[in-house]
Amino acid sequence: MLMATPSTDLRNVAAFAIHSEIHSARPDVGCAAHSHSVYGRAFCATGRTLDMLTQDSCVFYNDHVLYDNFQGVVLASDEGKHIAKALGHRKAALLGNHGLLTAGRTIEEVVAYFVLLDKCCEVQLAADASSAGSGKPLVHIGEKEAQVTWEALGHSSNGYFMGLPLFQTVEAELGPRTFLGRGVEPI
Amino acid sequence: MLMATPSTDLRNVAAFAIHSEIHSARPDVGCAAHSHSVYGRAFCATGRTLDMLTQDSCVFYNDHVLYDNFQGVVLASDEGKHIAKALGHRKAALLGNHGLLTAGRTIEEVVAYFVLLDKCCEVQLAADASSAGSGKPLVHIGEKEAQVTWEALGHSSNGYFMGLPLFQTVEAELGPRTFLGRGVEPI
Amino acid sequence: MLMATPSTDLRNVAAFAIHSEIHSARPDVGCAAHSHSVYGRAFCATGRTLDMLTQDSCVFYNDHVLYDNFQGVVLASDEGKHIAKALGHRKAALLGNHGLLTAGRTIEEVVAYFVLLDKCCEVQLAADASSAGSGKPLVHIGEKEAQVTWEALGHSSNGYFMGLPLFQTVEAELGPRTFLGRGVEPI
Amino acid sequence: MLMATPSTDLRNVAAFAIHSEIHSARPDVGCAAHSHSVYGRAFCATGRTLDMLTQDSCVFYNDHVLYDNFQGVVLASDEGKHIAKALGHRKAALLGNHGLLTAGRTIEEVVAYFVLLDKCCEVQLAADASSAGSGKPLVHIGEKEAQVTWEALGHSSNGYFMGLPLFQTVEAELGPRTFLGRGVEPI
Repeated sequence: MLMATPSTDLRNVAAFAIHSEIHSARPDVGCAAHSHSVYGRAFCATGRTLDMLTQDSCVFYNDHVLYDNFQGVVLASDEGKHIAKALGHRKAALLGNHGLLTAGRTIEEVVAYFVLLDKCCEVQLAADASSAGSGKPLVHIGEKEAQVTWEALGHSSNGYFMGLPLFQTVEAELGPRTFLGRGVEPI
Repeated sequence: MLMATPSTDLRNVAAFAIHSEIHSARPDVGCAAHSHSVYGRAFCATGRTLDMLTQDSCVFYNDHVLYDNFQGVVLASDEGKHIAKALGHRKAALLGNHGLLTAGRTIEEVVAYFVLLDKCCEVQLAADASSAGSGKPLVHIGEKEAQVTWEALGHSSNGYFMGLPLFQTVEAELGPRTFLGRGVEPI
Repeated sequence: MLMATPSTDLRNVAAFAIHSEIHSARPDVGCAAHSHSVYGRAFCATGRTLDMLTQDSCVFYNDHVLYDNFQGVVLASDEGKHIAKALGHRKAALLGNHGLLTAGRTIEEVVAYFVLLDKCCEVQLAADASSAGSGKPLVHIGEKEAQVTWEALGHSSNGYFMGLPLFQTVEAELGPRTFLGRGVEPI
Repeated sequence: MLMATPSTDLRNVAAFAIHSEIHSARPDVGCAAHSHSVYGRAFCATGRTLDMLTQDSCVFYNDHVLYDNFQGVVLASDEGKHIAKALGHRKAALLGNHGLLTAGRTIEEVVAYFVLLDKCCEVQLAADASSAGSGKPLVHIGEKEAQVTWEALGHSSNGYFMGLPLFQTVEAELGPRTFLGRGVEPI
């Protein structure tokens, strides 16, 4: 959240305003991730939440929210408070006209959820666009099946398991100095 | 299908449920591939099978099926049985609201088919989306031409030939220790 | 702007015609960037300017223009003059049927703006395409919020700060011989 | 056009059927390129030719053709003859339901044209898809401006100049043993 060089003191105030309020509101959260990925940005301009189009989107079934009250770049802790309140107990928020946010117990799950959420956005954007041409509506997963899938894939430990290979890949590329990928038990 | 570290015993139950039942039902199958690629996921939410839009899609002419009975993440062998039954003698299945699956005699052909199927999904999604804007319907290959093309490109040996360069590239990048790319005769 | 080998004297006349006129018209401009990126090209064929769909697009709020008078490849300084006139005091121009152009005080901000503008084009193209299928109009940022966001993110120093990591990455990859990433004060 | 290992004699018959007939019909052609790129495939399923949407597409103004007589994979020289006849004196053909083909005097220009044509397909697909959502028709370049641009960019020497950096990049990555990028005069 801080970027500084000897000749500057530019802190990422917006990042601090968001992250600090989420940690205040959610003591169970060990990590939150937020960025302006391309598909996340595009989806967050649609004013929609994720449709349950694939097994993977069910990880966010009843477990993500759209925060649609964009007030400009987040510079006051008030705005961070509003986002934290909207997020509630969920693992993800679509920040309207802004980008994606995921939160959870471990860094691994939060990174895995973020990557997964961005892919879900890409999938829904592409599927929606194609249906305009084919004239055939998309197929949605039923509520019962979505709930069953969330139960199987949507817990913190599932997310941790999903995130491990991402970190192990980084470790393999950057070397053991990264202290990552030490097993499935959170450090 | 198994991912384990000293401190865990998390097996990929879903993968085992799918793959084991396909191998049981299809003794000719030496390999099956399944993953949630982005374009595969998006296409599998459309409830459609591949249109014969390009020479390459004809590799799947009368040789792929949509399994549209998504019941949640596959945790019971029953679901794997259903998928294997739907696949039948074909080389590929679109698993509705889920992802792609290819099967065949050799690892090479199955990987080649998987990559090709994912590209066919990407092609159809992009072509459909564009036709919504142009207002001009896509051009479909005739049944006779599709059949002729399948005969020329759709056999196991064609797939093996298609897959070889993929493995040779991996071998060139990872070194000869991979025991891949030894010629066109399956090992 | 010049590409030459011992056996040739082919100069990029079009690039010179554009860049020289911008520097003549805008003494504050230390750098201008222009290229035919894929999403920039596609968006510049739509005859539209950026909608305020995301926080990032607000960097160009009332700060970009569409130059829609494509006369063929720019070979005369007259055409460069027209582009410079259309750009005015703004940081970016969408050159209709052509590509993107950004300009600013420092190389860092101009590169950051260019990358950001291209992503904004990609975002809007994907969001628009998806809305054709969903039937739901996109959500636009209000004028007040867009202005507030421009004030926070749209200044030259913000762009410089945004561009630094891009150059630091290049420096990390190509070595310290590049003389880049020396801090937040323009050299 | 030939792929062989000690244990096989599988030749790329389809490639030979296409390329040999083009060389027979066009003595001026030193090189032809054909492949099934993703965007090329998708565009070649639309039954359309390139609209003049960007400066770059004008390189193909009155200089490309749609061959819309897909008969299945090209295994007979007759089909190659038909393609060569359709191509005529032009630099590119969109092979319907199949893929892209470019031809020219030098390898450099042909590769540059191929890459450019594929990008033009990507641009038009994305622009069309977006216009379905925005409801606003795309802006087309006028005939006079397209012709002027073709005159400036569409000649063999322009293509050679465009292709040089592609080969120089390959040379830089693979070493001087590639005998590429020796200047702007064709070898």
